[in-house]
Amino acid sequence: MKTDFHFSKDIEMAFKNDPPGQWLSTLPPGCLRLSSGYPAPALVPSEKIKLAVARLLDEERDLPLHYLGSPRVPQLKEFLRQRMAQRGVAASDSELIVTSGACQAIDLIARVILDDEAVVAVESPTYMEALEIFQNYTEHYLAIPIDENGLQTELLADMLADRKEKGQPLPRLLYTIPTYQNPTGTTLSPERRKHVLALAEQYDFLILEDDAYGELGFYDSPSLLKALDTNNRVMYVGSLSKVVAPGMRIGWVVADSRIIDPLNWFKKDLSHPFDQATMASFLETTDFDEHLKFLTNAYESKCATMLSALEEFLPPAVSWFVPKGGYFVWVKIPGVDTSKLLPEALAAGVSFVPGKYFFLNQQDGLEYLRLSFSYANEEEIVKGVELLGQVAGVNIPAAEDKE
Amino acid sequence: MKTDFHFSKDIEMAFKNDPPGQWLSTLPPGCLRLSSGYPAPALVPSEKIKLAVARLLDEERDLPLHYLGSPRVPQLKEFLRQRMAQRGVAASDSELIVTSGACQAIDLIARVILDDEAVVAVESPTYMEALEIFQNYTEHYLAIPIDENGLQTELLADMLADRKEKGQPLPRLLYTIPTYQNPTGTTLSPERRKHVLALAEQYDFLILEDDAYGELGFYDSPSLLKALDTNNRVMYVGSLSKVVAPGMRIGWVVADSRIIDPLNWFKKDLSHPFDQATMASFLETTDFDEHLKFLTNAYESKCATMLSALEEFLPPAVSWFVPKGGYFVWVKIPGVDTSKLLPEALAAGVSFVPGKYFFLNQQDGLEYLRLSFSYANEEEIVKGVELLGQVAGVNIPAAEDKE
Repeated sequence: MKTDFHFSKDIEMAFKNDPPGQWLSTLPPGCLRLSSGYPAPALVPSEKIKLAVARLLDEERDLPLHYLGSPRVPQLKEFLRQRMAQRGVAASDSELIVTSGACQAIDLIARVILDDEAVVAVESPTYMEALEIFQNYTEHYLAIPIDENGLQTELLADMLADRKEKGQPLPRLLYTIPTYQNPTGTTLSPERRKHVLALAEQYDFLILEDDAYGELGFYDSPSLLKALDTNNRVMYVGSLSKVVAPGMRIGWVVADSRIIDPLNWFKKDLSHPFDQATMASFLETTDFDEHLKFLTNAYESKCATMLSALEEFLPPAVSWFVPKGGYFVWVKIPGVDTSKLLPEALAAGVSFVPGKYFFLNQQDGLEYLRLSFSYANEEEIVKGVELLGQVAGVNIPAAEDKE
Repeated sequence: MKTDFHFSKDIEMAFKNDPPGQWLSTLPPGCLRLSSGYPAPALVPSEKIKLAVARLLDEERDLPLHYLGSPRVPQLKEFLRQRMAQRGVAASDSELIVTSGACQAIDLIARVILDDEAVVAVESPTYMEALEIFQNYTEHYLAIPIDENGLQTELLADMLADRKEKGQPLPRLLYTIPTYQNPTGTTLSPERRKHVLALAEQYDFLILEDDAYGELGFYDSPSLLKALDTNNRVMYVGSLSKVVAPGMRIGWVVADSRIIDPLNWFKKDLSHPFDQATMASFLETTDFDEHLKFLTNAYESKCATMLSALEEFLPPAVSWFVPKGGYFVWVKIPGVDTSKLLPEALAAGVSFVPGKYFFLNQQDGLEYLRLSFSYANEEEIVKGVELLGQVAGVNIPAAEDKE
């Protein structure tokens, strides 16, 4: 981006990157959406939210439409605080801030913690919007590969030891999605959870635990990093986007109050009382555990359907991780550049997100793609995977020969 | 703020300031609110918004509860574009961004334009939250006094000429609320509007025109700076907070697309589809001009009531500007530190905002206070001003002698 305006010197670096949202495709009409990381239409409680707004405005009239004054705004915060306590994280009022979704939470943390000298450690692959955010602040990264048990902490330990020995700067922050990761669907093992916390203490870095999918486990979920954190090194980011509705923009951070204070300081969209009070009103009449059970049952079934369809329709050379929760299946198609496959897939009527967008070094992700079982219904999932299999089958180089 | 965390180097400067929100008082129960810059409860269309949400969710079901997909989100943007066109500002789709209120708009512009070397020119006094935002970015300011015709552009011209002659850095940005200013209620004269635009061209700075109150004129309003701007030097910031409801968090920026692009880039709370689609649904069944007429009639009457009460109950030494629109009356009580008067006023049952919070150099504002006629009803306004008169009367030093 070149202009004759006087831009901030801090953002000239950011402008070196591609504009955000490159990973978003324009979908043709009727396209089967295996790209969308959204809740399924049938799982979004639009009718209950309509009733929640009506009750809210009948009871409070103008209050939730002002800057301040709705009793349901602190009530939402209290709900989140109690939910965190149930999950093993005791947070005082000054240790929790409600944000406009998880992305704003990540951005605020980045703004407070990072500058152009900071090194950030990230999983490889990781959430593409988090990469977009961090790249507004710094050019310095450590990329730690993921396997079926999540972030490979042994590799991280080696990298840190190597950097320390060479006198290279150590990371100030590790960004991780330990549970039902985006995009891989993997979950960090309990042993590795302890290991990464020990490394944070040993090498003096903070951990941003992005838990957007953590309540969407098909079985028992492992303890949160924040619940295991005895040294206040973890900044926990939660979201109601995947378990209620993304359009309500409700996220939150739990961290040391010395971190929360400056987040408040730099959060200049102010509080969103209408969204927050509406969400509190919805939660008042919702058995949240029952609601989660309803969601996880539905997503588990959709996931199983997708995995069966992958077995049935994809050539044998194609592989994937089996998720235990969340929204995503991470697929590898050897020898195929999935970003070149995408136009064919869209023309055939199915969408996915090419793997390269989830990597700092996009070349590392060419053979991968992210499928989401969250949005499409089961019939659409089967049909979509069948179409993907057809498009992939004719593109895999000498796939049969390799068997 | 001192911590052992690794904070960004950019924000160490910000932490030198007081935390935001110092100007907010805790109001005792029953306090008459002449401090609140909110719309009156009776003027907030809560019943219509309830119906707007019901219609929205009946028609669109899950769409406005996802990240993307509600047709009413672009519809809101189109409404704002057309409204700007009616007010003399033709903006293409790429020249307008919807934000989470005016504060986020100001913060995003600051983030893109400012750094710690930038000089910002501001009116003195000016909107306290804008000062809080700018002080997160830079310590360098020009404060230009206001009179009954707004920003004194002749003084600005002198300051700029002086700086240029001395080789001192010139401002990169002028922040102004030209119409029904917060806190003074003053409006920049047409001659000064032309003068400030000529100065921007001559001295190469950008203008941030904050127009939060511009649609709330009791008579005809002067042309927007943006409507007079032939050189793309004005970044216009609008808001629906004062004319519909602040809790919906709808603001916008109109500017050169080279400015709008990076605002989109750094706006990480994403779009707020539920708020925006609800607002679009509300506007669909609202005659906006009629709605504004209803509001301005109400505020004009409340303003007249406040001015009469000031004449009746305040000692003769006290003076104020007569506003032609907006929310505020700016009052000077000679010889009194209004921040010391505030506890007495609150104890008596009336609130105001001490003038010092609207000044970079708080000492310059000790004798002033901001009254708002927006929130309280007419009976409360009369009673509140009477209480203020009693509290002020006993505190003015030898007020009678000066007459």
